[in-house]
Amino acid sequence: MAEVIEQVLRAALADPPEAVLDIMRLSLADWLAVGVAGQGEAVARITRDMVQAEGGAQQATFFGGGRGPARGVALANGAASHALDLDDTHFAHIGHPSVAVIPAALAVAEQQGLGKAEMLRAALAGCEASIRFGIVFGRGHYQIGFHQTATAGAFGATVAATMLLSDNPDVMERALAIVSTRASGLKSQFGTMGKPYNAGLAAANGVEAAYLAQRGFTSSRDAIDGPSGFLETHHCDGQAPDTSGFLMESVSHKFHACCHGLHATLEALHSLKPLDAATVKSVHIQTHPRWMSVCNKTSPATGLEAKFSYRMVTALSLLGYDTADLNSFSDALCDHPDVIALREKVEVVAEDALCETEARLLIETTDGSLIAAYDLAKPIGPSERSLRLRAKIDALLGEARGEMIWDAVHGAGGALEDITSRMG
Amino acid sequence: MAEVIEQVLRAALADPPEAVLDIMRLSLADWLAVGVAGQGEAVARITRDMVQAEGGAQQATFFGGGRGPARGVALANGAASHALDLDDTHFAHIGHPSVAVIPAALAVAEQQGLGKAEMLRAALAGCEASIRFGIVFGRGHYQIGFHQTATAGAFGATVAATMLLSDNPDVMERALAIVSTRASGLKSQFGTMGKPYNAGLAAANGVEAAYLAQRGFTSSRDAIDGPSGFLETHHCDGQAPDTSGFLMESVSHKFHACCHGLHATLEALHSLKPLDAATVKSVHIQTHPRWMSVCNKTSPATGLEAKFSYRMVTALSLLGYDTADLNSFSDALCDHPDVIALREKVEVVAEDALCETEARLLIETTDGSLIAAYDLAKPIGPSERSLRLRAKIDALLGEARGEMIWDAVHGAGGALEDITSRMG
Repeated sequence: MAEVIEQVLRAALADPPEAVLDIMRLSLADWLAVGVAGQGEAVARITRDMVQAEGGAQQATFFGGGRGPARGVALANGAASHALDLDDTHFAHIGHPSVAVIPAALAVAEQQGLGKAEMLRAALAGCEASIRFGIVFGRGHYQIGFHQTATAGAFGATVAATMLLSDNPDVMERALAIVSTRASGLKSQFGTMGKPYNAGLAAANGVEAAYLAQRGFTSSRDAIDGPSGFLETHHCDGQAPDTSGFLMESVSHKFHACCHGLHATLEALHSLKPLDAATVKSVHIQTHPRWMSVCNKTSPATGLEAKFSYRMVTALSLLGYDTADLNSFSDALCDHPDVIALREKVEVVAEDALCETEARLLIETTDGSLIAAYDLAKPIGPSERSLRLRAKIDALLGEARGEMIWDAVHGAGGALEDITSRMG
Repeated sequence: MAEVIEQVLRAALADPPEAVLDIMRLSLADWLAVGVAGQGEAVARITRDMVQAEGGAQQATFFGGGRGPARGVALANGAASHALDLDDTHFAHIGHPSVAVIPAALAVAEQQGLGKAEMLRAALAGCEASIRFGIVFGRGHYQIGFHQTATAGAFGATVAATMLLSDNPDVMERALAIVSTRASGLKSQFGTMGKPYNAGLAAANGVEAAYLAQRGFTSSRDAIDGPSGFLETHHCDGQAPDTSGFLMESVSHKFHACCHGLHATLEALHSLKPLDAATVKSVHIQTHPRWMSVCNKTSPATGLEAKFSYRMVTALSLLGYDTADLNSFSDALCDHPDVIALREKVEVVAEDALCETEARLLIETTDGSLIAAYDLAKPIGPSERSLRLRAKIDALLGEARGEMIWDAVHGAGGALEDITSRMG
């Protein structure tokens, strides 16, 4: 195996400090909440139904209830947890680590009868590998059209699933070689059920590769980086990051139930609160040019369109609607006169000098001018991250269920059942 | 959907003449025989074991016996039937149509309770689609490292599986869009268990996409040919062939249990028979330069190496060993003095003027010179093809089992059980 792959694995399988495990716990709680919230979406129902029609061993738990074989459950749970697109993101990975990795880690840990600690450790190694493979695959891989969440995600899911089955490095090496011929996922699916499905297939591919490697399946040593290998065929142009720290430390969580391109703007608004909407005369938003074609619907008519509209989310936020709550993105609110009146005051312009993670706002009010800026790449402290995530989970599921999910992950018990009993 | 995809589908789903169905029957008998012969190979056992450990509904029959869910059975049977690399080939497709398509068609037909005729028709449409997608994906796709058997094969398997579930063109269109984000398979797996596995994953991907589309899963209309779609990301440089005929008519079957690069030479030798090996003074073989690095082992020491040796197969053929019989490729025969003495008389040279499917031979004997040439691309008449395939199947499995397999496919009965009862 080449140096670059060894470097990725070394970093991913290193002993994690407790602070990094804490971040993984937050991602796990977030994943659990968005999966529960997403389990009724059509893509989640259809994928689960296909797997459940196959029957099989009761190895692992589906979002929405019931049990089935780990590989199929990983497929369905990956799709369910990415259905709402509210899960975590790693900008350097250019992908969503948890939705590809945790379904694989959890399903195999259940099948193996392991506990929360082993599962969490495997999920962290898998996410770390997923981020690092994403960086190795690089911007070229993403730009041409591969969905790193699915492709790098499958390698991450493989690392997580395999380390729950074996501590033999040869098994890990073979599992990664196997998944290199199985990994797939295209950006042409964006905006359709195919996007969440991509997370599910990454998780299932990881489980399959791990089980095959465990059984002695052999593959090519240079399947990833050799001739006709994954890197050569998949427009990969990145390099392994030269750090032994955990890149999962810089994972981002979504605190708003809308397109990630709108989050820096919402965080900048958040920093100005409390602000009386009645005093606002105009809002001028500067954002990275990339987002202008992604999430700048000027007059959204549906809740879905509202999730891709600077003007709409700005009006909602100023009027006090909770943008962490899915219900704030409704068709009805798009028609509400107060919302419409306020969004007419919002102007959005592209600014080349900004990064994709940044926004700058100038707000004119009857009391004077306000300026705010935010960069999502800015580190967020553990206690603030924890508070914001808990608030998001409560907004998504209500306080009572939010608390149960939080406790399932953070409680003292070591049994996986704490978690799986909350997936129904 | 773009014109190119519509054209592929139109041709694949056209009403086939009986003569083309006859060729598909031969491919089915061939597939069944090579699957039965390959079911004990490690890749077949491991893949089947992984699927069987999941349990599940008894929907379809495994090579090696037992039943399980159609999607998992398709994975295992694809791997089993490609394990020996003795299945059919289509040179324009640059791939093996039957091993990706038939496992999907058969598993879904069993699950749906359909008969032989429906299954055969779906398998033919799937193979035709597989070949045509292979041509659309083109040489660029193959050269960079994608394994057309797996990638185009997944699209073909999708066509076969979907037409057994629905006659709604919208379902077919969605299934193909789904499989475009699922299809994978790399040539870096060649020479390992990963190569037969690639056929299995193609079959399983087709079944999965079909079941999801049947349940209402939606995907992007331009997932294949639009921005970030399959063609753009996968180095595709071909075009849909401009013919409404069935390209499956020009499928090639392997009549020898060795590398396809040696077959034109063996056929040329076959055309000279009977020829007394004792009279042979020298054999001069001209072949396409590509094969010099693939199958020109000069002094093979093992049965596996013998499968990649012009000198060895020429000696075996002249000495009367049946090159359709796997047992002719043994370690012991590599050491046999008569074989060694004869192979020392064989010289192999590259000739740019030849196609990959051609070989030219000049044989000096004590009675004078003999010249022979063969091109695998030359059409083979239906009765000769049938005779040769039957002889191959008998050589692989013995006459008694060969006859049962032949009758299972060609007998008057319409039940799939005729076929599946022969897979154990």
